[in-house]
Amino acid sequence: METILRSPAREVRIGPARPFVVIGERINPTNCARLAVEMAAGDFSRVRAEAIAQVQAGARVLDVNAGIPLADEPAILAEAIRVIQEAVDVPLCIDSSVVKALEAGLAAYRGKPLVNSVTGESDRLESVLPLVKRHGAAVIGVANDEGGISEDPQVRFAVAQKIARAEAFGIPREDVLIDPLAMPIGAIASAGVSLFALVRRLREELGVNTVCGASNVSFGLPDRVMLNGAFLTMAIGAGMTCAITNPLEESLRKLILAADVMMGHDENCASWLAAQRPAGDGAREERLARRERRRAQQGV
Amino acid sequence: METILRSPAREVRIGPARPFVVIGERINPTNCARLAVEMAAGDFSRVRAEAIAQVQAGARVLDVNAGIPLADEPAILAEAIRVIQEAVDVPLCIDSSVVKALEAGLAAYRGKPLVNSVTGESDRLESVLPLVKRHGAAVIGVANDEGGISEDPQVRFAVAQKIARAEAFGIPREDVLIDPLAMPIGAIASAGVSLFALVRRLREELGVNTVCGASNVSFGLPDRVMLNGAFLTMAIGAGMTCAITNPLEESLRKLILAADVMMGHDENCASWLAAQRPAGDGAREERLARRERRRAQQGV
Repeated sequence: METILRSPAREVRIGPARPFVVIGERINPTNCARLAVEMAAGDFSRVRAEAIAQVQAGARVLDVNAGIPLADEPAILAEAIRVIQEAVDVPLCIDSSVVKALEAGLAAYRGKPLVNSVTGESDRLESVLPLVKRHGAAVIGVANDEGGISEDPQVRFAVAQKIARAEAFGIPREDVLIDPLAMPIGAIASAGVSLFALVRRLREELGVNTVCGASNVSFGLPDRVMLNGAFLTMAIGAGMTCAITNPLEESLRKLILAADVMMGHDENCASWLAAQRPAGDGAREERLARRERRRAQQGV
Repeated sequence: METILRSPAREVRIGPARPFVVIGERINPTNCARLAVEMAAGDFSRVRAEAIAQVQAGARVLDVNAGIPLADEPAILAEAIRVIQEAVDVPLCIDSSVVKALEAGLAAYRGKPLVNSVTGESDRLESVLPLVKRHGAAVIGVANDEGGISEDPQVRFAVAQKIARAEAFGIPREDVLIDPLAMPIGAIASAGVSLFALVRRLREELGVNTVCGASNVSFGLPDRVMLNGAFLTMAIGAGMTCAITNPLEESLRKLILAADVMMGHDENCASWLAAQRPAGDGAREERLARRERRRAQQGV
């Protein structure tokens, strides 16, 4: 089953027989105070620069979040989407827990985006899914509900089943991605094994594509990049099809490409071989990115 | 099912609920001309230094090979084993395709070693397995036979089944490890996926532990360490329990430890946390290794 996302001129397919899709995580003011201040003040130069840098580094979809306390999130999210769609031609993942913001983002977006996210809570399903349907979008369903996040993979699977009933709202099964939720492994030693089993089961029993944020698993531990890399690689082995992560993290990027090779998803190892070449192929993108970074620094 | 190996004072358990076991690959003159010349001349200083360095780097078992053209392999293998057992206290994996050499190695060894290897060829089974039984050793069965190495995982599984009948020779199932054979992925794109499936099936249907050489998979491709790292990590996710690999390769070492964390096999992440500490804890081993290296250089 393949999820198809679209920007004005590009199509990205997410599926079990395709290379793993990296969804760039860096346009997110909830993790970056400087970005929050700038976006709230209407300065989107860093948003633009991050969009270009992430696409250049191999992100095939970009997550866009505008969660800034006391700010007008719907307006800022819509503007960020307009700015990003001017700068890069990749599908976006519209990220908010505020329905009004999702609404504004969807209205501003050109193409078929991914909505991040809906939970299994009934009121969320009923407020978000009609919106997703109306805009012909795809949606990430997060495997928690009124009962919170369960440590029991059975419960999380049941929540995923509930979300997959989005079909009742007219959304085809291939447009529902499930986030099985990676718990911090420093606190819950079974977090990895139960996630890998869930990914496999979601694929085999529900046929859905799976996605997750790749860094929560290493929360509180040292050398998080290596832990996230092992986690993602093993999740790909279990059948995970995409993740929201940092494409600028070189070793993570390499490991994901290597995992694609191991899955037989990199024909003639073409992407692996291309990734060995020193920059230069990406010289134009690099120049553009540098210019954007300069602009961002100068506040142009 | 757990395979137990023993050196004079130490026991290593290999099994699906245990941390992954690295079998150090570096005492092997077939990959190192200088080592071949030295070993043939009766100089085992480098063998000793490699043994110490690998154990210090986390190898819990050491492979020992003495395959040198025109040399007296049985005598050299036996002497190498004596030298290594004087220097380090870990179980050894006695590696030869020559039955007489295995015999000499087993006679020299103190403890319960691993024999590397037997194939599914009838004459090999009949010459190697009685030897393994007589010495109470464990054995690696490689999934190829008279028909060569099949690209078909079904055939390789059938060969593994044949080898697992070592029980007929009085060798308990837990003392048979199967090497499902990693083919070069640059030539065979399905090599990874079919190996992961085989590892899972060997565990579920035969209950045996699995092992492989971790570097053949990346043959002919650039940045082999990263490919081998992704491969091993995914194989661990599929249930592989040990591999013959290079413990001195830092990023590989880290990935294997991270994979143990993800499998829930590193209680309280203790090994992961210990690996973050700068040397110093291993100061004594480091001093010994340095002395051995100096001796090796001076030909003492």
